Amino acid sequence: MSAAGRLTGVGLGPGDPDLLTVKAVRALEAAPVVSYFAKRGRRGVARAIADRWLPAGVEELPLHYPVTVEIPFDHPDYVAALSGFYADAAEALARHLAAGRDVALLCEGDPLFYGSFMHLYVRLRERFSCAIVPGITGMSGCWTAAGEPMTWGDDVLTVVPGTLAAGPLRARLASADAAVVMKLGRNLPKVRAALAEAGLLERAVYVERGTMAAEVVMPLTEKRDDEAPYFSVVLVPGRGRRP
Amino acid sequence: MSAAGRLTGVGLGPGDPDLLTVKAVRALEAAPVVSYFAKRGRRGVARAIADRWLPAGVEELPLHYPVTVEIPFDHPDYVAALSGFYADAAEALARHLAAGRDVALLCEGDPLFYGSFMHLYVRLRERFSCAIVPGITGMSGCWTAAGEPMTWGDDVLTVVPGTLAAGPLRARLASADAAVVMKLGRNLPKVRAALAEAGLLERAVYVERGTMAAEVVMPLTEKRDDEAPYFSVVLVPGRGRRP
Ligand SMILES: C[S@@+](CC[C@H](N)C(=O)[O-])C[C@H]1O[C@@H](n2cnc3c(N)ncnc32)[C@H](O)[C@@H]1O
Ligand SMILES: C[S@@+](CC[C@H](N)C(=O)[O-])C[C@H]1O[C@@H](n2cnc3c(N)ncnc32)[C@H](O)[C@@H]1O
Repeated sequence: MSAAGRLTGVGLGPGDPDLLTVKAVRALEAAPVVSYFAKRGRRGVARAIADRWLPAGVEELPLHYPVTVEIPFDHPDYVAALSGFYADAAEALARHLAAGRDVALLCEGDPLFYGSFMHLYVRLRERFSCAIVPGITGMSGCWTAAGEPMTWGDDVLTVVPGTLAAGPLRARLASADAAVVMKLGRNLPKVRAALAEAGLLERAVYVERGTMAAEVVMPLTEKRDDEAPYFSVVLVPGRGRRP
Repeated sequence: MSAAGRLTGVGLGPGDPDLLTVKAVRALEAAPVVSYFAKRGRRGVARAIADRWLPAGVEELPLHYPVTVEIPFDHPDYVAALSGFYADAAEALARHLAAGRDVALLCEGDPLFYGSFMHLYVRLRERFSCAIVPGITGMSGCWTAAGEPMTWGDDVLTVVPGTLAAGPLRARLASADAAVVMKLGRNLPKVRAALAEAGLLERAVYVERGTMAAEVVMPLTEKRDDEAPYFSVVLVPGRGRRP
């Protein structure tokens, strides 16, 4: 009987393939099976970032998010519907692991920071050996793209998902020294209003696809439309102590 | 007359030399001059992390923090005293840049996240071409070392410097879903008390030198002494929505 395989969550960073770590590149080169989340019919962003580092002939296990027609992607009901999908995906990985094959699961940014990887990790970590390679977060990629120092001295950094309701969003932003708003997409109008009410609109920087080929950086006040893709954030750089 | 050189802030990640990105390794291989902050008489952590990636014969420009006897390192007066040091350090870099030599400035973690690099960057970016290579933050290295998913669904992440006064520290932690307390050192007793008052002590994980050779990970409740080195954090993992 052969030993079970190991699951490695591999952080890929924000998008530029040269922002993989040396350790991540080695993990991709070594894995007999590579797995990744994607919408059905798409290769997905994680698979695209990893592309140049994957050895020819590696076995691929795409995990396709369930398609729903009525429920928007960021709605709590959709999130509930994901539960069965994560259970099935975990079993698909478990079959490889039980057969002794190591699996590298590709993760955009850092695996343990709002990552889909975490849902499979908590389902598998008691049954199989697991490892994690940290990645540069999307937000680091975005403040680098903007060239903005984010936190100085005693600044508190608040990272807020744009999926929060308007009230909590405003309250969190109002007390922030420096802030990052993630998961914009359809939430941008609500986020913009909350920033205005918190008096932060003039300081806000909008970054779309940070470090990717189609990167966009601009003051939020100059963004005239409310179209924001999935890969976008708002940054409010801190203004703390500067000797 | 030759063109001026370029300053590149190179993020080195949390400590494991294999957590440099491919882009950071290339930046180190290409730079004729490498600069780094260090205490006088020490090589410093950044220089040690970069060691295996630096080409033989690279010119080194260490920037030695001023030595003060009476004022503790994290005291506001010391921070004020740093101002002259940063001005001098910026001029030392400017001499190389003006002479047409590119300089790589080594940065622990990510350069734009509580980084000393930022003080030189804001002093030089109007005069010289600057570039930044993002790095894995110390906190990512620490939650990876702990194997702890940090933020789920709508969790807000609050990153707090342990240098804050007890009152603000407690208030920030009391409203946090997930939290990271940076800059522990002598602040650990205050941080521990604030976590207890915020009802978070049982959830807190202490990580020292995450991803470095002497890494330590333990529940904060099991840490019996109040000795914390400069490279240490407390993590409070979030408990948000999990389908
Ligand atoms: C589900 S979270 C995953 C975060 C990821 N694990 C990380 O460490 O950044 C997805 C959100 O991250 C942000 N994001 C990640 N990468 C980004 C990039 N390159 N540019 C802009 N936003 C990005 C967006 O706000 C997006 O909605
Ligand atoms: C001046 S801040 C610099 C942060 C750095 N630029 C980053 O991105 O992590 C220094 C603080 O970062 C934290 N830190 C950085 N690297 C760490 C590591 N490997 N282990 C534990 N703490 C670390 C500690 O709290 C330390 O006091």
